[in-house]
Amino acid sequence: MNVDTLIHAKWIIPVEPKNTVYENHSVAIKDGKIEALLPTDKARSKYTATQERNLDKHALIPGLINAHTHAAMNLFRGLADDLPLMEWLNEHIWPAETKWVDPEFVKDGTELAVAEMIRGGTTCFNDMYFFPDQTAEVCTRIGMRAVVGLILIDFPTAWANDADEYLLKGEQVHDTYRHDSLINTAFAPHAPYTVSDEPLKRVNVLAEELDIPIHMHIHETAFEVEQSVEQHGKRPLQRLSELGLLSPRMLAVHMTQLNKDEIKELAKQGVSVAHCPESNLKLASGFCPVGELVKAGVNVCLGTDGTASNNDLDMFGEMRTAALLAKGVANDSTCLDAHTTLKMATLNGAKALGLDETIGSLKKGKQADIVAINLDQLETAPLYEPVSQIIYSANRQQVSDVWISGKQLLKNRELTTMEYSKLMEKAKEWELKIKS
Amino acid sequence: MNVDTLIHAKWIIPVEPKNTVYENHSVAIKDGKIEALLPTDKARSKYTATQERNLDKHALIPGLINAHTHAAMNLFRGLADDLPLMEWLNEHIWPAETKWVDPEFVKDGTELAVAEMIRGGTTCFNDMYFFPDQTAEVCTRIGMRAVVGLILIDFPTAWANDADEYLLKGEQVHDTYRHDSLINTAFAPHAPYTVSDEPLKRVNVLAEELDIPIHMHIHETAFEVEQSVEQHGKRPLQRLSELGLLSPRMLAVHMTQLNKDEIKELAKQGVSVAHCPESNLKLASGFCPVGELVKAGVNVCLGTDGTASNNDLDMFGEMRTAALLAKGVANDSTCLDAHTTLKMATLNGAKALGLDETIGSLKKGKQADIVAINLDQLETAPLYEPVSQIIYSANRQQVSDVWISGKQLLKNRELTTMEYSKLMEKAKEWELKIKS
Repeated sequence: MNVDTLIHAKWIIPVEPKNTVYENHSVAIKDGKIEALLPTDKARSKYTATQERNLDKHALIPGLINAHTHAAMNLFRGLADDLPLMEWLNEHIWPAETKWVDPEFVKDGTELAVAEMIRGGTTCFNDMYFFPDQTAEVCTRIGMRAVVGLILIDFPTAWANDADEYLLKGEQVHDTYRHDSLINTAFAPHAPYTVSDEPLKRVNVLAEELDIPIHMHIHETAFEVEQSVEQHGKRPLQRLSELGLLSPRMLAVHMTQLNKDEIKELAKQGVSVAHCPESNLKLASGFCPVGELVKAGVNVCLGTDGTASNNDLDMFGEMRTAALLAKGVANDSTCLDAHTTLKMATLNGAKALGLDETIGSLKKGKQADIVAINLDQLETAPLYEPVSQIIYSANRQQVSDVWISGKQLLKNRELTTMEYSKLMEKAKEWELKIKS
Repeated sequence: MNVDTLIHAKWIIPVEPKNTVYENHSVAIKDGKIEALLPTDKARSKYTATQERNLDKHALIPGLINAHTHAAMNLFRGLADDLPLMEWLNEHIWPAETKWVDPEFVKDGTELAVAEMIRGGTTCFNDMYFFPDQTAEVCTRIGMRAVVGLILIDFPTAWANDADEYLLKGEQVHDTYRHDSLINTAFAPHAPYTVSDEPLKRVNVLAEELDIPIHMHIHETAFEVEQSVEQHGKRPLQRLSELGLLSPRMLAVHMTQLNKDEIKELAKQGVSVAHCPESNLKLASGFCPVGELVKAGVNVCLGTDGTASNNDLDMFGEMRTAALLAKGVANDSTCLDAHTTLKMATLNGAKALGLDETIGSLKKGKQADIVAINLDQLETAPLYEPVSQIIYSANRQQVSDVWISGKQLLKNRELTTMEYSKLMEKAKEWELKIKS
């Protein structure tokens, strides 16, 4: 039988079934989907392929899913570091956004971010930013998979002036891409402290009508929780619960402030949590109790947040930080083992975004979003357990090849749908503009 | 005037004076030492050089100093992960050491570790392991700088049988290298719970006679402290204090369990602390209060620990984890800013090892231990502040060139004194042996 692509690999880590490592196996890809996963010798006899790739030093994993980012903010990478959170926001990030954010900024910033993500093995990202129409346009052009956030915030921005306009423009973006194979949408009300009850209720109704997730910063800091108790007489999660927003649709980002009852409630309501360990550390937001959430049965996925607060979109680094930090926070060195961490960065992300039927694991019938990691490097030698090396020793520069829906976007570290030198020129142009 | 080497760089971060970044500057190197640091235009007119290197996209920093490692353990990288500390030690690491550790193991493991460190911008490491004579021999052959630990532990090992033999062999290693320009030594009593009072007293006297540091794991876990209170009726630091071991000679590693009085005492006695954030997280040992230690005036440096508990010797990753984690632990996003973190990984390490007169900063008269980082990469663009990019965005694969005492050991990412393919073969041989 003829297929489009055959990839022969030393190891394949499918994530489903869990804790599995196949040795000397191959993936057959047809029409952008995984046709089969089988031993290489069988694959060679069963299939002929238009394209064949031998990766005998490599591990294949499902493409990594960055469950929370603000892609366009790549243009602000390292603009303001080591500052108090409120000074960072009020005196640096928000003024810079007011001054610079427009369609051009979002287009160029997102292109740089997507290039960084593809070079780092990320094949899908869940974004929250202004001008999501630009984000979607960039991704379709490049071939990147994304869940574009239909942002909503109480104050006027360059993107929209009030709830009506935010929601209208959001629905327009949703309609434009409703049948697109790479672009999905989610409502993205910024946070409990920046979106009031009425628009939140409307989001809840619309999300159900359009059957899409809700992506929101929740319980990021202790200050946010205190403020809510003062203003509303209740913690943000309680308020959202009363507004009916806690459901399997909800992807709650950060969640560094959680008590036992709230953890139980999240599990009960099927809320997913996007853990962003490096951003939480860098901004001293607090520690998300990942170990307890996982124990309680909450679906926890992984995000980098934007590069202004990380300062990269490195999901390998994020997996490593998550696996290490969870152990320290839980005071348990068995917490978040390597396989569990990889699942958080793949299948759990897909589930949180309502995409686990199509992506998140290497399984017959799913989209061929695949990442090859070259483990034949001094920094990952000797090698006793490939998943352990991937989480604790490998770095994103060992990503050699990336496929999204069967289309190769990275080949031997070269981007196939973007021009690296042009991207660097763009970054330099913005750097000079923003510096001045 | 003619010098041996001239390096022209886009940025130079000398670490001394602090918070300084020179743009378009050059380093002149003569007889292995830094002859001058000056603007590139001046350098070109003032000096002729046997070798000249133009690094117009790069930042130069002092070579990174890994203040705590067990280099030979590279052969155990990823051998046993995600286990309870005691099971990890008793059922995996110690049995593996009993079975495998001999001069050949230490020689090969150290070679792999040194290659990894040089490729990652580390130019000096403070080691603690068996057969330090092998470690020293490997480093002199390769051109790596090291402080070799003269290990001491109460139980017999392949290296020595009792305190007398450990100390005798240690002194022999010290004598062999006493006039070596690359190799220094430190006494390395393993830990308070593995070395009894008598040998510790002897170490203290000998360290003063030979004028070398003492390198020891201290207060790594809560269990260690409780155990000491049971057995000795006092916490380990108290016991060491009474034995007279707390002084500027002491480099205390880990220190995750510290009360306010102990922090004051460390500052008062001039004890240095080697912080190993990734190992502490991975083994769930606890959180070293780095922010408080720095505030109290304690000299804090940075180490990776061995790859069996990290799982790499990546000082870039360690700087990043240290800078991020300190903010979370101190609940202060201004804690451990980028410049302070770089100083911890360079000058503070040199000071802890008694080498701050010769290494740790880019300063006239110091040894030319220099690392070039190529910041012209998508992952570090745009660039507003080079030190911020180095700590929060760059990764060790951006290290392009490394010099130790003016000798170039890494050139465009190629090792100049080791054969990469041979190293990989060795790693593979040991992998197969140890797996079986």
